[in-house]
Amino acid sequence: VTADLTRAALEALDRADDLAPFRAEFDLPADVIYLDGNSLGPLPKAAAARVAEVVTREWGTSLIRAWNAHDWIGLPLRIGEKLGRIIGAAPGSTLVADSTSVNLFKLLAAALAAQPKRHVILTETGNFPTDLYVANGLTELLRRGHAVRAVTDPVSALNEDVAVLMLTHVNYRSGAMHDMAAVTRAAHAVGALTLWDLSHSVGAVPLHLADDNVDLAVGCGYKYLNGGPGAPAFLSVAPPLQADLRLPLTGWLGHAEPFAFAPDYRPADGIARAMVGTPPVLSLAALEVGVDLMLRAPMGALSAKSQRLLDLFIALVEQECAEDGFRLLTPRDAARRGSQVAFAHPDGYAIMQALIARGVIGDFRAPDVLRFGLAPMYVRHVDVWDAVAALREVMRTGAWRAARFQVQRAVT
Amino acid sequence: VTADLTRAALEALDRADDLAPFRAEFDLPADVIYLDGNSLGPLPKAAAARVAEVVTREWGTSLIRAWNAHDWIGLPLRIGEKLGRIIGAAPGSTLVADSTSVNLFKLLAAALAAQPKRHVILTETGNFPTDLYVANGLTELLRRGHAVRAVTDPVSALNEDVAVLMLTHVNYRSGAMHDMAAVTRAAHAVGALTLWDLSHSVGAVPLHLADDNVDLAVGCGYKYLNGGPGAPAFLSVAPPLQADLRLPLTGWLGHAEPFAFAPDYRPADGIARAMVGTPPVLSLAALEVGVDLMLRAPMGALSAKSQRLLDLFIALVEQECAEDGFRLLTPRDAARRGSQVAFAHPDGYAIMQALIARGVIGDFRAPDVLRFGLAPMYVRHVDVWDAVAALREVMRTGAWRAARFQVQRAVT
Repeated sequence: VTADLTRAALEALDRADDLAPFRAEFDLPADVIYLDGNSLGPLPKAAAARVAEVVTREWGTSLIRAWNAHDWIGLPLRIGEKLGRIIGAAPGSTLVADSTSVNLFKLLAAALAAQPKRHVILTETGNFPTDLYVANGLTELLRRGHAVRAVTDPVSALNEDVAVLMLTHVNYRSGAMHDMAAVTRAAHAVGALTLWDLSHSVGAVPLHLADDNVDLAVGCGYKYLNGGPGAPAFLSVAPPLQADLRLPLTGWLGHAEPFAFAPDYRPADGIARAMVGTPPVLSLAALEVGVDLMLRAPMGALSAKSQRLLDLFIALVEQECAEDGFRLLTPRDAARRGSQVAFAHPDGYAIMQALIARGVIGDFRAPDVLRFGLAPMYVRHVDVWDAVAALREVMRTGAWRAARFQVQRAVT
Repeated sequence: VTADLTRAALEALDRADDLAPFRAEFDLPADVIYLDGNSLGPLPKAAAARVAEVVTREWGTSLIRAWNAHDWIGLPLRIGEKLGRIIGAAPGSTLVADSTSVNLFKLLAAALAAQPKRHVILTETGNFPTDLYVANGLTELLRRGHAVRAVTDPVSALNEDVAVLMLTHVNYRSGAMHDMAAVTRAAHAVGALTLWDLSHSVGAVPLHLADDNVDLAVGCGYKYLNGGPGAPAFLSVAPPLQADLRLPLTGWLGHAEPFAFAPDYRPADGIARAMVGTPPVLSLAALEVGVDLMLRAPMGALSAKSQRLLDLFIALVEQECAEDGFRLLTPRDAARRGSQVAFAHPDGYAIMQALIARGVIGDFRAPDVLRFGLAPMYVRHVDVWDAVAALREVMRTGAWRAARFQVQRAVT
């Protein structure tokens, strides 16, 4: 590998990259190499115009009439349907609503209701904290003897007590990815439902929820979908489960006839019942632009480029910063990871600060993890070269020591 | 009254109106008289620029750094604090988060947890349906013998079984308003908590949550606050209740240290614990503009003008449409109503469609209610004249019969 690792070789890869034109769809500051799309995707150029249109023309001119005239009322299902194609869900499975945390709560409660004789929510210790918090919050609310069991190897811990196996598909720190099909099969073999958090997968790796027989899923709109800060989240429910789905948050927009203003709740057919309150139209408008853009890019090409960028990043760090104490946390096997790469380093925070000061934006996760998201829609091969060159410079010049000093001074 | 009811007299009132300049703060279509701000407030001119700035400059340029650089992370508490001033809540009581329905669920669950020996959620039959749905959904989830008791006179039904009295302050149909101080006193006399839904009050009538000893409140950002379609909602919790508040939705942003990514949930101090997921920044930006605008207008003057507009609207309908079969649903006593007026009419739907076709935008609520929101920030006295003149024309010309015919044809 090393022999090919020159900046010129990476420039050649960019010239040959069929996905290269997608970069021009984003507003990216000229002085930044943006490797944090796994935390907040950048601004699609079309989103600025679309949001302005929704604000000025739709809200400003149509006012209340816009709910019908511009089909605001249809946004959650319409964007959900598009998202369903991105995640390989069956038609009519997917809805945009609320936040990932709220959607997790809704589907976890529904999963427990669907499995009245089972009492365990099984998950893994390294799951994103909010997933654990929400599961524990739910069991404490229910007070019916449910337990949240967080283990390092959840597949081995599957048994007939497990109501639902709740996992994040791609780990937020390491980028390691579960085998969705195999894990779902294992869960089904003991009669457990599966609930996948796709926050770090959607738009990053190929997903086939229907083919993999996934029961329930949630995910986030503001990472690889480039839906904007705090974009609404989504949820997906396999069609056979929808009719008996007992959701705990029964808001008026999930009613079969919201505008009948009936005193009794009667859930809408299908996934529409998972709506709760009035959807945030401005945020939805931005999300739709990101989703539409993602639908234009072939997922196979995105995934191939993503894994190539990861391979290059890892190889370059090992070539250029071999003596600097970085420990790779992300699997080397492309089939076992998402679109981000993570290294542990005891001075990770200071190193990331020094990198950001140089315009290379990744992020840091306590206690010692440097994360770099390599989103293939806009990250170039040459960006990987330049990012690692900046990392090398930070380590060689000791710039990170100054950053560490500043951090220590700020804390004390 | 009738002697003064000429268009010229109302123009004179507009000339003398200290609030008149606020109308210029809104983008209102020239061909519309907008009387539906109780459903969706119009666009404040500054909101378009502010949202564009957040999209283009903050998201586009600062990217992930905007969470700190532009204090996105502080938005829910910052806007909540401003909202707290509008509703007369104690400092540190109020947070912008989620939807009204989700916030109701959170606070109802917390109220039941705080009252473990009581089993009744008391409310009224005419409450907004989502409030009833959410309460019933919660009790069905808990399965611990809680009951939702909806009665026509909730104060008379107060007793020591009542954990929480949940009421909408201003009724969404009739516009009738509860006496918040007296009802709260009555609830406290039997040891019940109060949970007020302020969706049709906030920005419409003076509110004094702290003085009235209100325990819990929720409300909506997109009506009289002019926060934009689907604007985030808010909740407010009296400070003495906050420390022991057990909220059912324990998301990462309500954690004491969200970025420590600790495996166990530890709620943040104060009202911050009521945050759940990542807040929708674009929608929050628009809401803040509406809230800032509301803070600039003196509530006493707003309320006085609002009640004057209602009096005029009622007097004019009775003067101009006396024979047309409209039945007033809204109290005549200004102290007992919000900022909207409602009439029942068996052909209400067709009449409203004919009005809207003439640019007079109110709305219709099944089965027979015409609602007109008279938001004093931008509705002029002369608009009331012109709206009722349009109503008279619709009735005199029989235009509503054509609308009724179209409705019937569309349905069959």
